[in-house]
Amino acid sequence: MNRTEWPITGCEQPLDRDGFGEKCAVVGVFGHPEAANLAYLSLYAMQHRGQEGSGIVSAHEGILLSHRGLGLVADVFPEHIIRQLKGSAAIGHNRYSTSGQTLLKNTQPFVVEYGRGGLAVAHNGNLVNALELREQLEASGSIFQSNVDTEVIIHLMANAKGDRTIDRVCAALARVRGAYSLVFLTPRELLAARDPYGFRPLVLGRIKDAWIVASETCALDLIGATYEREIEPGEVLCISASGLESLHPFPRQPRAACVFEYVYFARPDSKVFGRNVYEVRKELGRQLAREQPADADIVIPVPDSGVPAALGYAEESGLPFEMGLIRNHYVGRTFTEPRDSIRHFGVKVKLNAQADVLRGKRVVIVDDSIVRGTTSKKIVQMVRQAGATAVHMRISSPPTIASCFYGVDTPTTEELVASRLPVEEICRFITADSLGYLSEAGLYAFLRGQRGGFCDACFTGRYPVPVTDLGRKNQLWLFEVAEV
Amino acid sequence: MNRTEWPITGCEQPLDRDGFGEKCAVVGVFGHPEAANLAYLSLYAMQHRGQEGSGIVSAHEGILLSHRGLGLVADVFPEHIIRQLKGSAAIGHNRYSTSGQTLLKNTQPFVVEYGRGGLAVAHNGNLVNALELREQLEASGSIFQSNVDTEVIIHLMANAKGDRTIDRVCAALARVRGAYSLVFLTPRELLAARDPYGFRPLVLGRIKDAWIVASETCALDLIGATYEREIEPGEVLCISASGLESLHPFPRQPRAACVFEYVYFARPDSKVFGRNVYEVRKELGRQLAREQPADADIVIPVPDSGVPAALGYAEESGLPFEMGLIRNHYVGRTFTEPRDSIRHFGVKVKLNAQADVLRGKRVVIVDDSIVRGTTSKKIVQMVRQAGATAVHMRISSPPTIASCFYGVDTPTTEELVASRLPVEEICRFITADSLGYLSEAGLYAFLRGQRGGFCDACFTGRYPVPVTDLGRKNQLWLFEVAEV
Amino acid sequence: MNRTEWPITGCEQPLDRDGFGEKCAVVGVFGHPEAANLAYLSLYAMQHRGQEGSGIVSAHEGILLSHRGLGLVADVFPEHIIRQLKGSAAIGHNRYSTSGQTLLKNTQPFVVEYGRGGLAVAHNGNLVNALELREQLEASGSIFQSNVDTEVIIHLMANAKGDRTIDRVCAALARVRGAYSLVFLTPRELLAARDPYGFRPLVLGRIKDAWIVASETCALDLIGATYEREIEPGEVLCISASGLESLHPFPRQPRAACVFEYVYFARPDSKVFGRNVYEVRKELGRQLAREQPADADIVIPVPDSGVPAALGYAEESGLPFEMGLIRNHYVGRTFTEPRDSIRHFGVKVKLNAQADVLRGKRVVIVDDSIVRGTTSKKIVQMVRQAGATAVHMRISSPPTIASCFYGVDTPTTEELVASRLPVEEICRFITADSLGYLSEAGLYAFLRGQRGGFCDACFTGRYPVPVTDLGRKNQLWLFEVAEV
Amino acid sequence: MNRTEWPITGCEQPLDRDGFGEKCAVVGVFGHPEAANLAYLSLYAMQHRGQEGSGIVSAHEGILLSHRGLGLVADVFPEHIIRQLKGSAAIGHNRYSTSGQTLLKNTQPFVVEYGRGGLAVAHNGNLVNALELREQLEASGSIFQSNVDTEVIIHLMANAKGDRTIDRVCAALARVRGAYSLVFLTPRELLAARDPYGFRPLVLGRIKDAWIVASETCALDLIGATYEREIEPGEVLCISASGLESLHPFPRQPRAACVFEYVYFARPDSKVFGRNVYEVRKELGRQLAREQPADADIVIPVPDSGVPAALGYAEESGLPFEMGLIRNHYVGRTFTEPRDSIRHFGVKVKLNAQADVLRGKRVVIVDDSIVRGTTSKKIVQMVRQAGATAVHMRISSPPTIASCFYGVDTPTTEELVASRLPVEEICRFITADSLGYLSEAGLYAFLRGQRGGFCDACFTGRYPVPVTDLGRKNQLWLFEVAEV
Repeated sequence: MNRTEWPITGCEQPLDRDGFGEKCAVVGVFGHPEAANLAYLSLYAMQHRGQEGSGIVSAHEGILLSHRGLGLVADVFPEHIIRQLKGSAAIGHNRYSTSGQTLLKNTQPFVVEYGRGGLAVAHNGNLVNALELREQLEASGSIFQSNVDTEVIIHLMANAKGDRTIDRVCAALARVRGAYSLVFLTPRELLAARDPYGFRPLVLGRIKDAWIVASETCALDLIGATYEREIEPGEVLCISASGLESLHPFPRQPRAACVFEYVYFARPDSKVFGRNVYEVRKELGRQLAREQPADADIVIPVPDSGVPAALGYAEESGLPFEMGLIRNHYVGRTFTEPRDSIRHFGVKVKLNAQADVLRGKRVVIVDDSIVRGTTSKKIVQMVRQAGATAVHMRISSPPTIASCFYGVDTPTTEELVASRLPVEEICRFITADSLGYLSEAGLYAFLRGQRGGFCDACFTGRYPVPVTDLGRKNQLWLFEVAEV
Repeated sequence: MNRTEWPITGCEQPLDRDGFGEKCAVVGVFGHPEAANLAYLSLYAMQHRGQEGSGIVSAHEGILLSHRGLGLVADVFPEHIIRQLKGSAAIGHNRYSTSGQTLLKNTQPFVVEYGRGGLAVAHNGNLVNALELREQLEASGSIFQSNVDTEVIIHLMANAKGDRTIDRVCAALARVRGAYSLVFLTPRELLAARDPYGFRPLVLGRIKDAWIVASETCALDLIGATYEREIEPGEVLCISASGLESLHPFPRQPRAACVFEYVYFARPDSKVFGRNVYEVRKELGRQLAREQPADADIVIPVPDSGVPAALGYAEESGLPFEMGLIRNHYVGRTFTEPRDSIRHFGVKVKLNAQADVLRGKRVVIVDDSIVRGTTSKKIVQMVRQAGATAVHMRISSPPTIASCFYGVDTPTTEELVASRLPVEEICRFITADSLGYLSEAGLYAFLRGQRGGFCDACFTGRYPVPVTDLGRKNQLWLFEVAEV
Repeated sequence: MNRTEWPITGCEQPLDRDGFGEKCAVVGVFGHPEAANLAYLSLYAMQHRGQEGSGIVSAHEGILLSHRGLGLVADVFPEHIIRQLKGSAAIGHNRYSTSGQTLLKNTQPFVVEYGRGGLAVAHNGNLVNALELREQLEASGSIFQSNVDTEVIIHLMANAKGDRTIDRVCAALARVRGAYSLVFLTPRELLAARDPYGFRPLVLGRIKDAWIVASETCALDLIGATYEREIEPGEVLCISASGLESLHPFPRQPRAACVFEYVYFARPDSKVFGRNVYEVRKELGRQLAREQPADADIVIPVPDSGVPAALGYAEESGLPFEMGLIRNHYVGRTFTEPRDSIRHFGVKVKLNAQADVLRGKRVVIVDDSIVRGTTSKKIVQMVRQAGATAVHMRISSPPTIASCFYGVDTPTTEELVASRLPVEEICRFITADSLGYLSEAGLYAFLRGQRGGFCDACFTGRYPVPVTDLGRKNQLWLFEVAEV
Repeated sequence: MNRTEWPITGCEQPLDRDGFGEKCAVVGVFGHPEAANLAYLSLYAMQHRGQEGSGIVSAHEGILLSHRGLGLVADVFPEHIIRQLKGSAAIGHNRYSTSGQTLLKNTQPFVVEYGRGGLAVAHNGNLVNALELREQLEASGSIFQSNVDTEVIIHLMANAKGDRTIDRVCAALARVRGAYSLVFLTPRELLAARDPYGFRPLVLGRIKDAWIVASETCALDLIGATYEREIEPGEVLCISASGLESLHPFPRQPRAACVFEYVYFARPDSKVFGRNVYEVRKELGRQLAREQPADADIVIPVPDSGVPAALGYAEESGLPFEMGLIRNHYVGRTFTEPRDSIRHFGVKVKLNAQADVLRGKRVVIVDDSIVRGTTSKKIVQMVRQAGATAVHMRISSPPTIASCFYGVDTPTTEELVASRLPVEEICRFITADSLGYLSEAGLYAFLRGQRGGFCDACFTGRYPVPVTDLGRKNQLWLFEVAEV
């Protein structure tokens, strides 16, 4: 084992899959007798944002009670555990699944004792000056237990002035830069904060007298909470027995909401940045049909994420929509890749092309994005083998040409096929008869109606916040030998 | 704990869900150096037919090697286990998931030592005279280790005359009645058998020089095998180094293929009883639109099983198809029902109704069947709460009025809402504005083109094979205390 | 993996340790509201007879409830499991720990359904004609699930005539030969049986109105039961609501109680074959001192089993007794042998020689037996390295020259050092200054006072019951791939 | 759950057993290619000092590799884990077993990242001003993750000046008071430190070119290392590629070695504070016989700890030594206390009194100490019930009248029976015919030959170091919900 260099991020992970990674989910509940239970259900509804591990911390009679574990929410929290997480306030976190080292200690919420009691934090996002801050903190005597950037925030809070937690949160966040949607829990308060650019989503809901903060509205739907509003970019919110206190302590910045939440990340039934995701995706499909028509017989999605855009494409183009690829929904984290002679199943264990549907047809395949191109190539080949006479690939977003530094697990820029090849060569690489991407203008044709702008660095390479840590190495000094 | 009475079946289970249960899956491989690996992949592709547990037995140098476990295929078979299952022949089984007692010892394949070596058996189906036969066998000194009907078949084989395994299989099956698709493994042979009525599916495929037998063709697709033909009703097939030997030892019977495989059980991308399931479901949806039109704005499926029929309905009716209900695909076996004050989530943990799609719309919901009616009621209410102004429920099969005795997990006849209430009262019970079922004639309008007939006892109460054991109690004398 | 040949025995195991293996323990309880709890405590007290796995079966309202698991009694039976094992009768079994394949399915009690209900059996011993009987049974249609000889007994019972369980037990046992101490449980009766030679111990005790049958009296001591008597050789005892029924259905045989129970197996605080084991061992030590004196300064035992004999030796010889070897009592099943450069710890992980006690001393080491000689050699070397100027090994039993076929795990005769070498060469092999064994006459000087004789085949090669299966191979047709 | 107050100690634990608790064990290895393996074996040899959990950290190519787990050493470290703990330096820790909450995060070594790399620490002992220091540290911005006092030391190091680790260790330890035997590991150095009073043992050994530091010499014996010397009280030792550097940075204090290590804690075959424990215990027994003779027939120990003293007592008194109480060595952490009607087994599951040895005898029982008196009472009753006509209890140490604050798990002073009752009333309470303790003078008659003095606060109430934290509450702000 050589000394490892590691990206420092709230949900850091190795990058070895052909796709953009989901990000973490956070949730906070205040003022409900079954706070941990609501947090559990919310995490369950947001399982798509992270499957590596989960944690919940509740506040009960001045003490923070915590439980964290690796695996899916429903496995980490059997009933007898939830029952022990007493109290009327709680926060929770889903961690994104990685194929690298999976450690319990990296599972959030982070829980520490500082100054006058317990503090728990859960983070979705990625700081771009965490290493710089860390060097400063270590030089002045701070000890770190992990290389997760969330720990930097806690140290900044511990070193901040001010008696009130919200003041310390504001002081700490004033020094960090990057993307963060955060929830904090103390024995008496729930706090939520969103960076001034509003990269990652965070919404506020209500269920009877209780407040709930969550990454996506699908969490509110499951527990029957009503949607109140977004936590605003740059807002720091403190919920306590005295009510809500909202501060905007940072200089105002142009909004830079992650447009990829619409393209791929969020659950289609969530409202994100004020809009229903399914509707946006369908509209992107319609726009794609207008920009990139195809002489074809049927439109098929790459399920599940491609379904809404394909419906939109079919609707606009007048071509019939078919489920030409069937997804095996039992694909889990533990699938054993078979041995040599019959290996390289790749996408085949997830998708099966239906010959009876595709045979003799000119097919439009609608997908949300192309990352390395290897998966798209396999899908095109599967569809052709199933008898399609022509395969036209249509992508409901512009080419992805640059890595994300704001909390999304992406390959390096070099690994992104669209950063290296023009569209016609990508088309050849994936062996399609034609390939069409949605234009940047098309992406925003429908979205611009919204207040504020978007971060589309992955499509444009224009980064709203410069990455201070870029030259720094996040050296890993500690390594836990795998427990299994 | 009182003395328990239990239905005796190849995949017996308690009946406490609102739905018809999936059935088991079987697979057999002969003549491939990675037989267990192919069996593993096949079971993985057929995970939808059973999630309680899985097992694989391989034949290697005269010995049968077995591994069985509770849970999903990918969890039961980590790579180091598959590597130990050496040999060029193997059989496997997926057991249907139950919410009752889940026991390793009930996981198949059944493996025993009899007479001249090892024998393994895996069974999909249900015998209707197993208790009668068992009484006879016990009276003559046979010892039983389970109350699974598959064990009856093994005892009949052990007591049969004949040196060849195929002769003993024929002799044993001559005495049983009911539904069975079986695979057998000895150190030298793979055998497959299907009852004379052909209730349950079973197909033969080929991959290079190797043979594969499986419940559904989606297994063949995943491993790249070609579909050869169905194992015929009443056929007993023996595959060995000498080649294939096929016998039809039983009196010919009218075919009675389970029509519910088309309606709900099979994977849409499988070819079952000679036809692509997706195409059949879509056609049932089209026919449903013709028989039961609705004055509505959109058509939405109950995902995932209702999608093809809803696509057909939308196509035929000209109404737009929308994903108005979004399914959480992370719903697993272990979901913890929350405690009192916020309980009764039921279908809500699986499905979320999209207000932005449904608001102000007159909605057609397409589902495959109504069992107890409680789930349908919740779905109708969800859709209405999301803002639909009218809710028209359309079912792509006739009313289910009778229990199945041929290997499907169904409620008792009394629990089936359609056995007690006329359609208009069911409509009122589920609080829909209108309810329309597919007619029996409509069900067969498209299917009758096929050779042979179907078992539709669940729709008609007409049972092709009388149930001998009906008055008998399957008393459970042994009970393993749960291991968790 | 080649076809494996395996010794068929009630507690079969591979033979790869330098020592005679402990044997299994059985227990039965009838007439106590906490029968399973008493069985649990009894198994706990008899843990020294088997550490591989344990099982308990209770009878409750006509059903047999069972739980079995691998590992120590206290781990297999957490409280919530014991609580589920309801009923006023129960039997239990400890299985001897092996370093080979450890399978749940080989854990006893064996539970089957036969004829008119459930039957559970637990066995301590080994049949010598099990393979012969098995061939006959398989030829007439019996199916076997294991290669444990206990299963033969159940099949013989199933094929026997007679309505009463006791009659079937008698009929079955009339056909088997070898060593057995058995307990049976039906929903209404507890039965106990001991072979006509009385090889293995089995005692009857009483606690209030309840009866208890156990391998050793230390089980009675723990639960506060009084010792009533031995189950007699050749006795078949049935305990039911009607009281005790005792039969002696077999021809009387000369008693052949295993003398090695006194030498090594039994717990020192047990009464076995009517005598306190500690007292016997101490007397063997005294006799050894008379027969094999040594010119030495101190006497030290090989703990724990050698302590009583060493105390006797010290007492008789007048030499001081010292704990010159200290045992690490945390040695368990799972100790990881270290890697190459520092390996071959062997006995050192269990025993440490005390230099401060041994330095400059002429030492008598008292042990109970020498099997392969390798352990004794290491102990002699340890003691010498610790500074002893002379090492005299004294063994409190005669040389072990022959394998056991009556339920003890022994090396093959060829592996027994005393079968190959005369005493003086063994002395040289173990590098001792002198070596003295107890004589056969000395062994019995004290024991002969008892009624009946002993089996000492391991010391003499005189086998009381000829081994019918000797030429037969116990071929293993089925093999479960390890679950861990 | 109420807010919990908790004693802050290196191996803190709840106090609910009738006995003084063992303390933790530490080990360090430097310069051996299998450092982790040697650490593993050393922890294994010192298992008696802590059974709750274990951890090892190794240094490999600039990174610290760690593994910790709950349970016994042999279970926490299977071979594949040890193999991953590469490097030529390692430290390890055994944590004392408690019946309260057992948490992985409290398992040591503690591993953190501070300033210029990784640092691991393992601690045996207890600081008496940890809470005071902690308040100061928290006030200046330090964040704590546990309430283990070891964490205070790390924070002090992080805040200390000095480039060299040894300087920071000296600076940190200059501020703490109490008992500590510590090992530290950095990627380049192994450090060991012992408090100026030398409360807890710590020795230095050598194996070829490698150095080893361990709590007890039995660790050296197992791995074949030679004993070099004690780490001296007040010594801070740094072992690196440059060799050994030893500092004595603190003011010299009178030695206060824990005399209870001799009485009970240490393994009898260890050399502690320069003397063989077994020899000391035997001599205490001899002195006890001189001071507290008894008119009796036999002497029996309470095994295992009472054996050496009983041997000494028997030798001096001329009475025969017998194993009148037999210990069940399979008693583990997981024993399920049986339910109501047959409960209160207490000491009976561990010890059985031998009627055949005790009947009609006047018995001297030798034990090392009496804590609450409840266990002694049960033992006296057991021995009497087994037929003893008189029971004389003899204790090989003075009455324990005061709690320990230097790292030993003791009841509160009020719970100690000897703090409340005079000897004659204790005798009545435990129902003995006579009771005799060793005198304080007798305790030291043999030991005073050694250089330096002893801490005997538990016998005298004279505390060498005042307890600063005494009035402070160690409030627990964080609580992990049990994982099982």
